[in-house]
Amino acid sequence: MERLNWGMIGGGEGSQIGPAHRLGAGLDGAFIFAAGALDHRPSAGRAYGQTLGLTPDRSYGDWREMLEGERGRADAVDLVTVATPNATHFEITKAFLEGGFHVLCEKPMTMTVEEGEEIVKLSQSTGKICAVNYGYTGYSLVRHMRAMVSRGDLGHVRVVVAEFAHGHHADATDADNPRVRWRYDPAQAGVSAQFADCGIHAMHMASFVVGQDIERLSADTVSCIKSRVLEDDAMVNFRMSGGTVGRLWTSSIAIGRQHGLTLQVFGEKGGLRWSQEQPNQLYHMPIGKRLQVIERGEGGLSPEADRTSRVTVGHAEGMPLAFANIYKDLAEAIHARKNGRDIDPAADLYPRAEDGLRSMAAVFAVAQSGQSEGQWVDARPPMFR
Amino acid sequence: MERLNWGMIGGGEGSQIGPAHRLGAGLDGAFIFAAGALDHRPSAGRAYGQTLGLTPDRSYGDWREMLEGERGRADAVDLVTVATPNATHFEITKAFLEGGFHVLCEKPMTMTVEEGEEIVKLSQSTGKICAVNYGYTGYSLVRHMRAMVSRGDLGHVRVVVAEFAHGHHADATDADNPRVRWRYDPAQAGVSAQFADCGIHAMHMASFVVGQDIERLSADTVSCIKSRVLEDDAMVNFRMSGGTVGRLWTSSIAIGRQHGLTLQVFGEKGGLRWSQEQPNQLYHMPIGKRLQVIERGEGGLSPEADRTSRVTVGHAEGMPLAFANIYKDLAEAIHARKNGRDIDPAADLYPRAEDGLRSMAAVFAVAQSGQSEGQWVDARPPMFR
Amino acid sequence: MERLNWGMIGGGEGSQIGPAHRLGAGLDGAFIFAAGALDHRPSAGRAYGQTLGLTPDRSYGDWREMLEGERGRADAVDLVTVATPNATHFEITKAFLEGGFHVLCEKPMTMTVEEGEEIVKLSQSTGKICAVNYGYTGYSLVRHMRAMVSRGDLGHVRVVVAEFAHGHHADATDADNPRVRWRYDPAQAGVSAQFADCGIHAMHMASFVVGQDIERLSADTVSCIKSRVLEDDAMVNFRMSGGTVGRLWTSSIAIGRQHGLTLQVFGEKGGLRWSQEQPNQLYHMPIGKRLQVIERGEGGLSPEADRTSRVTVGHAEGMPLAFANIYKDLAEAIHARKNGRDIDPAADLYPRAEDGLRSMAAVFAVAQSGQSEGQWVDARPPMFR
Amino acid sequence: MERLNWGMIGGGEGSQIGPAHRLGAGLDGAFIFAAGALDHRPSAGRAYGQTLGLTPDRSYGDWREMLEGERGRADAVDLVTVATPNATHFEITKAFLEGGFHVLCEKPMTMTVEEGEEIVKLSQSTGKICAVNYGYTGYSLVRHMRAMVSRGDLGHVRVVVAEFAHGHHADATDADNPRVRWRYDPAQAGVSAQFADCGIHAMHMASFVVGQDIERLSADTVSCIKSRVLEDDAMVNFRMSGGTVGRLWTSSIAIGRQHGLTLQVFGEKGGLRWSQEQPNQLYHMPIGKRLQVIERGEGGLSPEADRTSRVTVGHAEGMPLAFANIYKDLAEAIHARKNGRDIDPAADLYPRAEDGLRSMAAVFAVAQSGQSEGQWVDARPPMFR
Repeated sequence: MERLNWGMIGGGEGSQIGPAHRLGAGLDGAFIFAAGALDHRPSAGRAYGQTLGLTPDRSYGDWREMLEGERGRADAVDLVTVATPNATHFEITKAFLEGGFHVLCEKPMTMTVEEGEEIVKLSQSTGKICAVNYGYTGYSLVRHMRAMVSRGDLGHVRVVVAEFAHGHHADATDADNPRVRWRYDPAQAGVSAQFADCGIHAMHMASFVVGQDIERLSADTVSCIKSRVLEDDAMVNFRMSGGTVGRLWTSSIAIGRQHGLTLQVFGEKGGLRWSQEQPNQLYHMPIGKRLQVIERGEGGLSPEADRTSRVTVGHAEGMPLAFANIYKDLAEAIHARKNGRDIDPAADLYPRAEDGLRSMAAVFAVAQSGQSEGQWVDARPPMFR
Repeated sequence: MERLNWGMIGGGEGSQIGPAHRLGAGLDGAFIFAAGALDHRPSAGRAYGQTLGLTPDRSYGDWREMLEGERGRADAVDLVTVATPNATHFEITKAFLEGGFHVLCEKPMTMTVEEGEEIVKLSQSTGKICAVNYGYTGYSLVRHMRAMVSRGDLGHVRVVVAEFAHGHHADATDADNPRVRWRYDPAQAGVSAQFADCGIHAMHMASFVVGQDIERLSADTVSCIKSRVLEDDAMVNFRMSGGTVGRLWTSSIAIGRQHGLTLQVFGEKGGLRWSQEQPNQLYHMPIGKRLQVIERGEGGLSPEADRTSRVTVGHAEGMPLAFANIYKDLAEAIHARKNGRDIDPAADLYPRAEDGLRSMAAVFAVAQSGQSEGQWVDARPPMFR
Repeated sequence: MERLNWGMIGGGEGSQIGPAHRLGAGLDGAFIFAAGALDHRPSAGRAYGQTLGLTPDRSYGDWREMLEGERGRADAVDLVTVATPNATHFEITKAFLEGGFHVLCEKPMTMTVEEGEEIVKLSQSTGKICAVNYGYTGYSLVRHMRAMVSRGDLGHVRVVVAEFAHGHHADATDADNPRVRWRYDPAQAGVSAQFADCGIHAMHMASFVVGQDIERLSADTVSCIKSRVLEDDAMVNFRMSGGTVGRLWTSSIAIGRQHGLTLQVFGEKGGLRWSQEQPNQLYHMPIGKRLQVIERGEGGLSPEADRTSRVTVGHAEGMPLAFANIYKDLAEAIHARKNGRDIDPAADLYPRAEDGLRSMAAVFAVAQSGQSEGQWVDARPPMFR
Repeated sequence: MERLNWGMIGGGEGSQIGPAHRLGAGLDGAFIFAAGALDHRPSAGRAYGQTLGLTPDRSYGDWREMLEGERGRADAVDLVTVATPNATHFEITKAFLEGGFHVLCEKPMTMTVEEGEEIVKLSQSTGKICAVNYGYTGYSLVRHMRAMVSRGDLGHVRVVVAEFAHGHHADATDADNPRVRWRYDPAQAGVSAQFADCGIHAMHMASFVVGQDIERLSADTVSCIKSRVLEDDAMVNFRMSGGTVGRLWTSSIAIGRQHGLTLQVFGEKGGLRWSQEQPNQLYHMPIGKRLQVIERGEGGLSPEADRTSRVTVGHAEGMPLAFANIYKDLAEAIHARKNGRDIDPAADLYPRAEDGLRSMAAVFAVAQSGQSEGQWVDARPPMFR
């Protein structure tokens, strides 16, 4: 398969997300890192890009320069990843979509629901891919959960219970540390802290696995550390488009939890439990039978699971490979378009602009409900009501 | 230590709860089974009592006969356990308290909040013990959690997350089975099904461990199986008297969960996690340190844990011994009263009439909130407001 | 069912094993504690017996007095438990068997293989029960493993892997503590320390579950703490009468292991894994299928599992109830004999004199092999060769 | 850091190991895939190399052509990976070392001990790196175990217990499948099957973590499936150069185990337990304290752990990243040599020719001992005696 050209905006020296994207994009050899505008300081970005192997002419000083530079090229980048500070995602994503590029945007896709709707419309009108990086859904067994639900193994899903709990912001004496404080400051973080940062991943995963959208929700948000304006612990009840009931707990003060992204799915015909801390096992109980352990990589799983599993059963796979699966999906999507063929349905699972928009609407709904004693509010973006 | 005389009402042949109480009361040799009215059919109860070793004169035909018979005796029962159908608890408990007996009543203590208040007042005015059987708090490591919170190991408790989830009523095709159906029928079960049956145990445990009462709550209750009037899945958010935030999920349709009674406690200085499915381990993370495994029976635990642990570390103890700890507490309480001495504070932990009353108020509050879109309601009984 | 009279020798005030036996014998109400010689100091034993409810005439000063006293009585004890120091087991067990009593002897049954053979012959010639307390095989799911193997669920068992590892004697600075030191001193403990104390439980369990005897073995024994003569860590390979290969590791210096009694069974058609630290779950993988979790108390298990399970599925049961199951078996065995009927085959599973003898032979074989560079030796007692 | 040129021999289209190496070498961007002879069919190898991005002149037909082609180049490969069939490892590795290249050879490095000694000497005389791919030691927490032992956290290590058990060859009806059968056929697999294939990884890990060599061993090897000549289950006891006692079990018939590579280390001052199925947690019990959970990526770990950990704590890392750490070590080693500086000691941990040689000697020792009733044999290669 021909290798695709890939470019990146943001992710400069010292960033965490930069190496993760380069690893994810490069893992399967589907993308060549061909262009970048890696730093808000033009010279630093240009220099760093060259140490990473970019040619000088494609190691750009800023995203506008990159947009200009790539637009004319025969070997222009096939996909642009936007991994800049949150407030700039909208502007850059918009510009590249309009410029005719496929985009993978870090979450959050935008800062407002209105901007989100604009991106969705733009993606539709340009026909360009706009993916959003809810990377946890790349795990092979998360894909398999979705496949099981989709093919009816669980029957109607009655209740989904999602969780994303950690304790990394529990230290009150560290709360004024600038690296932590900004997250709980509306001026910098927007209307929500822990839900927008972590909870939304669990909500997206619930929606992805169950195959339904969030329609209404009620939230109980609290700031356990008094100096915080935004929430560090939240419980959200929700209702989904197919009638499934959802419960979601997220916390950043849950000392002893490292990264509790967990999903439980309870249907008429069985239950599932998966946790990202031990992502290679999926617990399945068919009603009236025994709890069974599904192992990533075992024979007989769904096509969705098989194509996102790389090492043999019993060996652990982790987050970087899950992340790479989003890129693997995008490579397939781009190749299918280039060749005018249908996309492999087992690959057509990357989160997209619509997910980014729905997530943004859910974040605002949680904030609104949390401020009004848990009143139930519509969680859908206006354009999908 | 002199052995105490113990009597039982209900728990006849074929009942599940009868053997459990006889095992619990007899385990440490503190109580002798001396009298009983075991069946609503007088002759059956008398006969069965004698097969269990009761003398004919103390193998009674009904509870009134037993009350009369025991009242005059020099060797009258020191404690009466009430394990009859729920609707009769109030009447029998009231009669025995008034008759001058200590009582251990199965849950629910009463069917209404008003009756609960009456029992509490009666227990106060008579000076008799009225215990209620929230037996799960008898586990050694649950006692230790309470001790840790009480002595400040966790600092202020910010959030408590409780769970009681099973899947034993998930089968829609079995929903009309009379053994299941009555639980979801308001005419037979009252205002709540799954919360009143299971969730309340988790709520009582949260209150017991944190050492605070439930003040306000908001509930999201659903009936996943359509023929049910009462809820089979509920999420309850609550606030406690010391400012702790609570989240509690309970379900009877959670296929794959066997008996998910789990408690997580998150304080300023650390977190705890305990599950009744593996009750001999308690996970503790002091802030900034590592997750540690506390083993039941290990050296250096609290007096509350030590006195409720019977076998050496590494051997499993289970539910029957937890249950027996409630009786062990009651034996100590009765001996202390008989001898006019102070009770061992590490034993003064059995659930009492006030807990039975608060639980009843919480059940009604959950039902009320669940019927009004999760509105926050006062969960306290009027006499404690 | 008529209650049986039970007596105990040893288990006086302050002993650990005494309460465990009284709990086990009393748990189901099958036995009444009727007689005892509880202490090697006659007056202390008599006094303590009465505080436990024995009548003065059956609260004996020593075992000879008890033998005399019980022999003539119409209500003589139906079963005598011998829980005295190891070196006296043979003499007392022998005397009571000859006196016409059924006996449950603590392990080790004897100090030599020759004595063991004598007890076996005596049990056969008198027709009296001589049980030996390998109590871990009383767990419901251990019984179920045996039933599964017996009915062919696993096909021919190829390999069994047993483990009993703890770290409670790992502290070199505590090695001269008399409570620890005697265990590693041949003058007091015999030819083996850790294997005889713990390993033999794992070996008996392997034999019990697989339904085969140990025939030959090779041992690698080491004393990790230099001042010890006897082993504190041993690996034993063995071969069983039906061709199964065994591997058994036992250690008392394995810091971090609390009570690692674990059994894995690998047959042609499936594998099993069970651990006494979490005894309510059994992991079963049928070949070519998925790992499944069998829960104690679930529906559809074997009769052997059902009769040894007391509380509902999802609630934990622990060691005391496993121990009580040995007494439950013995009650059934005694009733069957009294009534001239066949014993329930699901109850005919208590360890007996033959097991005590085979265990003693295995202990000597391990010591012999360990002293000769792991040479393979015959592990069978002479009378069974 | 300047990127290094990397070449590969073997790992053609359809192989499993090829993608794993390319992923591992490419993950951190330290190596550029610059040359290869990927297939034993020259034209297929040349074509496949080009689809992977090699230039036509460096997409070679066989390893001899590659050796010639690379030898003269200014941009010759800095490292050659040998991933060809086992029997060819010796010849190719030898040729490239002699040709002045650094080599990473798949295991086994050679087929005999004599060849192994030749490679070790050649590596010494040429001054070239010869690494061998025991990739499981690349896991961050395995590195941390080694660091803990090395800095004395455990004191003298008394016993190490290693395990590598799976059940993927348990099906007797599949034993004649050619993909399985060759492994148990001495003509194709040499003197050992399961130990050479899997057990040796566990033994190398034990040696790596404890920092001692294997000196003597005794093995009990069995063929559970009768048609097999070589062993499918083995227990090995061993003694290490610093006095540590080892126990190692390996099996390919252990149904229910997926990939049971587990290490337990018991020292005077504490114990450790790690398992590759959940490689992101390490259990540590300091003597007299509680079991603690060390999380990969947490603060305050050793430099050895820090440099081999890529994603934040709580996210899972798996086997591919462990594998990449071997390449990361090699990149550091090569850069250090190029620049005439000392190697980072935390990186100087890749397995090398001496490990390949010692492993080969251990394989032969296991086979010899297994054929002579477990006689203890010297496990050291002659040149290290």
